[in-house]
Amino acid sequence: MIDNVLKTIDARRGQLLGGLEPFLRIPSVSAKPEHAVDVGNCARWLARELEASGLSASVVPTRGHPIVVARTPQDPARRTVLLYGHYDVQPVEPLEQWVSPPFEPAVRDGAVYARGSADDKGQIWAHIEAIRAWGADLPVNLVCVFEGEEEIGSDNLENFLESNAQQLKADIAVISDTNQFARGLPAITYGLRGLVYMEVTVSGPSHDLHSGMYGGAVPNPANVLVELLASLHDRDGRVNLPGFYDDVVPLTQSERDAYASLPFDEAKFMEELGIAALVGEKGYTTLERKWARPTCDINGLTSGYQGTGAKTIIPAKASAKVSMRLVPNQDPRKIASAFMQAMRDRAPKGVTLDFANHGASAGIIVPMDSRATQLAASAIRTGFNREPVFMREGGSIPVVGHIKRVLGIDTLLVGFGLPDDRVHSPNEKFDLDALYFGARTAAALYHELAKL
Amino acid sequence: MIDNVLKTIDARRGQLLGGLEPFLRIPSVSAKPEHAVDVGNCARWLARELEASGLSASVVPTRGHPIVVARTPQDPARRTVLLYGHYDVQPVEPLEQWVSPPFEPAVRDGAVYARGSADDKGQIWAHIEAIRAWGADLPVNLVCVFEGEEEIGSDNLENFLESNAQQLKADIAVISDTNQFARGLPAITYGLRGLVYMEVTVSGPSHDLHSGMYGGAVPNPANVLVELLASLHDRDGRVNLPGFYDDVVPLTQSERDAYASLPFDEAKFMEELGIAALVGEKGYTTLERKWARPTCDINGLTSGYQGTGAKTIIPAKASAKVSMRLVPNQDPRKIASAFMQAMRDRAPKGVTLDFANHGASAGIIVPMDSRATQLAASAIRTGFNREPVFMREGGSIPVVGHIKRVLGIDTLLVGFGLPDDRVHSPNEKFDLDALYFGARTAAALYHELAKL
Repeated sequence: MIDNVLKTIDARRGQLLGGLEPFLRIPSVSAKPEHAVDVGNCARWLARELEASGLSASVVPTRGHPIVVARTPQDPARRTVLLYGHYDVQPVEPLEQWVSPPFEPAVRDGAVYARGSADDKGQIWAHIEAIRAWGADLPVNLVCVFEGEEEIGSDNLENFLESNAQQLKADIAVISDTNQFARGLPAITYGLRGLVYMEVTVSGPSHDLHSGMYGGAVPNPANVLVELLASLHDRDGRVNLPGFYDDVVPLTQSERDAYASLPFDEAKFMEELGIAALVGEKGYTTLERKWARPTCDINGLTSGYQGTGAKTIIPAKASAKVSMRLVPNQDPRKIASAFMQAMRDRAPKGVTLDFANHGASAGIIVPMDSRATQLAASAIRTGFNREPVFMREGGSIPVVGHIKRVLGIDTLLVGFGLPDDRVHSPNEKFDLDALYFGARTAAALYHELAKL
Repeated sequence: MIDNVLKTIDARRGQLLGGLEPFLRIPSVSAKPEHAVDVGNCARWLARELEASGLSASVVPTRGHPIVVARTPQDPARRTVLLYGHYDVQPVEPLEQWVSPPFEPAVRDGAVYARGSADDKGQIWAHIEAIRAWGADLPVNLVCVFEGEEEIGSDNLENFLESNAQQLKADIAVISDTNQFARGLPAITYGLRGLVYMEVTVSGPSHDLHSGMYGGAVPNPANVLVELLASLHDRDGRVNLPGFYDDVVPLTQSERDAYASLPFDEAKFMEELGIAALVGEKGYTTLERKWARPTCDINGLTSGYQGTGAKTIIPAKASAKVSMRLVPNQDPRKIASAFMQAMRDRAPKGVTLDFANHGASAGIIVPMDSRATQLAASAIRTGFNREPVFMREGGSIPVVGHIKRVLGIDTLLVGFGLPDDRVHSPNEKFDLDALYFGARTAAALYHELAKL
């Protein structure tokens, strides 16, 4: 049966883009109020396409943009797969940098250029082609949840999952919103880092003071802030917070060996980022640092005079946005507390500290040797005719944590994008090969997950 | 004669503010290009007022903002006094903290609130009222130099003094841009700190990076900046730059004794500034730290995301404005070099540093036992009916150094401001009593300096 399905996709290879193009033409920019109607239209368009694929679909309103839910007839004898994706896209600015207009898909050099082509419409479309190729023979029950607020923080998704947990019951979740390791090196992303995002504000005098008249005699909140922030790392690049590493699960030797064997070009990496040297925690490689070690990065600094030239003040306040990327098993709440406690313990007298927490999510790992992961690996072998790379990702996909917490299931991250797809930037593209091999892999994945 | 002059001022006590108000309404913010026209207008307004006071005045263009020069007829039999002031003002931000708009003078509780009211327009106006009260009987030749770039480093003043040294020849200089020691304790400021104002920018990646995808593996310029800045002090609150203290002249025991005898109320000082503790270099009192010890203060911090909420970026750049207050005998150029060299030596690989120097001036001491200082003390006794305090000032008035070097004369610092005037901050004010007693003292000072 799977062979026939793959043959159907192979035969449609030249027509796959035709189905995706109308999807890419809808400017479903969730961040912009002026595109709210487009986002709604996109949801309805997607629901109609899912109906046309044999699923029963509905557009579920939320406090923000709607969620498209679709399902096949549910056969209790079959495994159930929850497919998550998002139909909203990032803003397009700066518009003048686009070679072709962001919502007029254009093919160049074997790729379709359009906002949302890789993130995430093209990847959703690979699944819809797979579903159509399977038709009534789809060997799993499928529940699709496609949201319209992923690019603006998925504010209403967790509540939606909680309210509909019974109808969303599944054995495994699948998300195709990640990348291949490189062109021709398809990957399963088996780990994600979590996040704690804090803001700390140091307050000293009640108003800005003349640095000549008062300098040297009063606490300067900016001086204090940099000392507090500098204390967050030790000389080996490790995060200097009590207990920070207590719950970190060390990388296994097999993971380290696997990463070391990947064709990662440090020189090219540095060139793309415009940096002269790579730095980080002592004793780890760049891929290990990016994927599997916790971090602490200052994301923003604000204090005092920021205009041109000089203003001689002791600022009344100084603040920093600081985010810590967490690895699986670190508890975001515990880390947030450790951060606040350490800052308070280390602050000198004469200043007060205030904190805000702008986000917290746990790191995620789906063991490489789990049944689901091995089935996904088989699907990639079938779909791409390549061995999959097992990789992690340094960023966070909060919905994976929500699905685990609310629905109690793991998520397979099998994405078809490429690192050079320019997601969130002008000239986003999606390779036509990625669409084709992605559709094949999605078809094979449903075949494999029937065996879960 | 002086008695009549003082009577004239006493009679005008209720009208003094009326002359000052139009001066305060002109937003002569020298740091902001959008206020360049206002600065020019302010210079012309001031020149007209000086003409109306019987002086011949001109507005002298520079590469930056103009300098207002005015003079009385020069009688070779009389002593000549060079009066320096500045008509430019500090920026007003944060605007929302002003109780009344910064350029709409408002009287509350016996003070006029406006940007520049104490620093330095109100103090200039005290002299203009004194000049007007003397009229044709002014017993000294007067040369006024009022610049428009004091708040941005007086870049063109030194060159102006050099080019016009012959016309600016004088026996003594007078500046009223300092404070009384406290309300009712008028002072002569016999020492000033100098200044080196640096900006350091740390650059890493060529563009902001996603902190999830890259965090932990690439140099974060904000992380680097806070480490560099934190290295600027040791645990005893001393500035940690090689050679920083080498040329510092220690306080004499008589100075320390004199400061200790002043009615300085630490509790009230802390309350006025809204701080819970006083900090600073170990082994020195607050007055010693403020007046006579060198410092290093961060005046501003800028990096990455500064909006509300969270943005998960590794910023491409991070920068700080850092000023060091110097005491007499420290060389500003040597200190600026030591700062840059230390930052470069301490920076890790993978980032680049750039520097800008926004100002440099040396610390100053004016002999306390000189004839001019004693005459100024008499003027204060006449003007305020009080004994003067001999104090130092933590701020810098670079022109005092320029006047000494170029014109070869000392400067009397007889200022009428109060420590709670909030100069450089929102809600700057100038007491109406300070304006009144200041005008009397200025009138008496011209009387006394005729005897020099």
